Amino acid sequence: MEGKVEALFRNPSGILSSDAPGNDIAISSRVRLARNPADRMFPLRESEDERREFAAEVAAAVPEIERLGGADALVFDPEHMGAIEREVLLERYLASREFNARPEGALLAVRPDERASLMVNEDDALRIQCLRPGFQLDEAWEEASALDDELGSVFKYAFDEKLGFLTADPTNVGTGMRASVMLHLPGLVLTNQIASAVAAVGKLNIAVRGLYGEGSENLGNMYQVSNQSTLGESEKQIIDRLGAVVSQLVEREENTRKLLMERDQHGMLDVIGRSYGVLKHSHRLSSEEALKCLSGVRLGVDMRLFKSLDVDRVNTVFMAISPAHLQKRAGRELDQSERDVCRAAFCREHLN
Amino acid sequence: MEGKVEALFRNPSGILSSDAPGNDIAISSRVRLARNPADRMFPLRESEDERREFAAEVAAAVPEIERLGGADALVFDPEHMGAIEREVLLERYLASREFNARPEGALLAVRPDERASLMVNEDDALRIQCLRPGFQLDEAWEEASALDDELGSVFKYAFDEKLGFLTADPTNVGTGMRASVMLHLPGLVLTNQIASAVAAVGKLNIAVRGLYGEGSENLGNMYQVSNQSTLGESEKQIIDRLGAVVSQLVEREENTRKLLMERDQHGMLDVIGRSYGVLKHSHRLSSEEALKCLSGVRLGVDMRLFKSLDVDRVNTVFMAISPAHLQKRAGRELDQSERDVCRAAFCREHLN
Repeated sequence: MEGKVEALFRNPSGILSSDAPGNDIAISSRVRLARNPADRMFPLRESEDERREFAAEVAAAVPEIERLGGADALVFDPEHMGAIEREVLLERYLASREFNARPEGALLAVRPDERASLMVNEDDALRIQCLRPGFQLDEAWEEASALDDELGSVFKYAFDEKLGFLTADPTNVGTGMRASVMLHLPGLVLTNQIASAVAAVGKLNIAVRGLYGEGSENLGNMYQVSNQSTLGESEKQIIDRLGAVVSQLVEREENTRKLLMERDQHGMLDVIGRSYGVLKHSHRLSSEEALKCLSGVRLGVDMRLFKSLDVDRVNTVFMAISPAHLQKRAGRELDQSERDVCRAAFCREHLN
Repeated sequence: MEGKVEALFRNPSGILSSDAPGNDIAISSRVRLARNPADRMFPLRESEDERREFAAEVAAAVPEIERLGGADALVFDPEHMGAIEREVLLERYLASREFNARPEGALLAVRPDERASLMVNEDDALRIQCLRPGFQLDEAWEEASALDDELGSVFKYAFDEKLGFLTADPTNVGTGMRASVMLHLPGLVLTNQIASAVAAVGKLNIAVRGLYGEGSENLGNMYQVSNQSTLGESEKQIIDRLGAVVSQLVEREENTRKLLMERDQHGMLDVIGRSYGVLKHSHRLSSEEALKCLSGVRLGVDMRLFKSLDVDRVNTVFMAISPAHLQKRAGRELDQSERDVCRAAFCREHLN
């Protein structure tokens, strides 16, 4: 059976694509809007059956919502999916941990290009998400806003004239918006500048987190930079402020890379070469080491050091070696040791 | 100027050759005989001029000594060589540290295939050395004995009916012989068996040392196994006893490798693959890491895991990445950081 997850599985991921502006350092941009219907409780206050009822309502509306792909939208029912397939959605940034933890009455609608999606009955009843490759915060925001308009014409949102949109978590009240950019910052990490950069940004109410969000440490030198406040500014103001910070970080990373190449070319080539050597020749590879090495190879690709490797290839491997993707590919559960062997085999085969 | 060191330099080394029995684990065999003329003091008790006088005598005799190559023998005068060239001789196992430390009045005669040589005015006036690739202790002994007969007909040796040959260091008195085999024991190292193996062998009066002799730690999993006592047994008895110990160690290493492949194939392939990956892709490589990785690659070659790599290629690299060889190739002194860059470049280029 060729399922919906398989359909997604054929692509590296809609958000990881080389045809994007500034995709050397800014990997992807995301805007997420939290919305709730005025006539319902927040999902956590509802019974499973109430949640299922609302999910069915949304499922019925999806084919009419153009920005989700209309009739082509992929609709997932987590309750009737296996754990590995749900995890695949998480690894593709389409589902959240909270969403996967509570599949009863949950629903996910995804546009086939994966750049627009809708989680139903996560902490909020509706979570709109728009993803874009590279540094495209404005575009992601415009897309999310348009999808929001479409949905808003179907569901009457809980909205307070003074506060704005009402959300399950009070830190989302107001715009209900969380915007973020994923940055690849190996230069700042190599030169021990990352801690001071994170601290400086924190003062601007901008948060920096690891690859998989809150609490996750530095994996593969990837950092999610996102707005912390959702009140007191318009969405555009938040996006602009976040964009300015991202631009600064990107510039700092660029300058650091140039400096490193000037001051220690052999050291840089060594980091990049060894990263490639491990990916190309190891037979056991942990997720952490693989991401670290992919960071080195990505840096080399950015610097045009590889003849036959491009960023699309790096992105394909980046996504494919995630634990659930490996298991989905193998067609069965794999323990960690088996995953490490499969991960190494995939890298050896696909990094030419 | 194409000098004598350059002549040696063209080859990987006479003792490192694949056309030898048992060369998977036993890399090379060596027999060294210490001799002193009856009518002279030991070199350390002589003046520089006295040593030079004796060196001139030996130099005059060399063209007649067939086992040293006769007129084709390469005769080196360390006093008039640069430090790097003397170090090249050391790295090729033709000169000792003691020999290089005292070049005044020293002389080295080497047969062009490097399998027979004579140090003059090391600790002893004459040190005969015969080297063979693989496990060829008997052959090395026979060669050394024949060369000893030739030399003994030119110089009357200091010999005591009761003690045997008299030598500068009392631990050499008797046969004056030190026989050794270089073993590659990655399996015993990986499985933490090496310490117990060394201890067991020590009880038999057999010493186990690192790659560069006394005091040198484990480099590249290479171990020199040699006789400790030179008194109370004939040369043949010593050789046989040492040979039996070597055979046991080789067998233990072989069994361990088989077991490792059965129990942890991925782990073994990982060690071998990563070793190759580092050698093939790094841009800075210390001597220690290079030897460690060459050990991994040699293991892979032994196990027939590489299509296009053979033991000759490994041996070529093994010798060429030594510090003095690197500097000789570069044609100038290199500091450690420069050597690490040159070493990595050589490995990248030559391990295909």
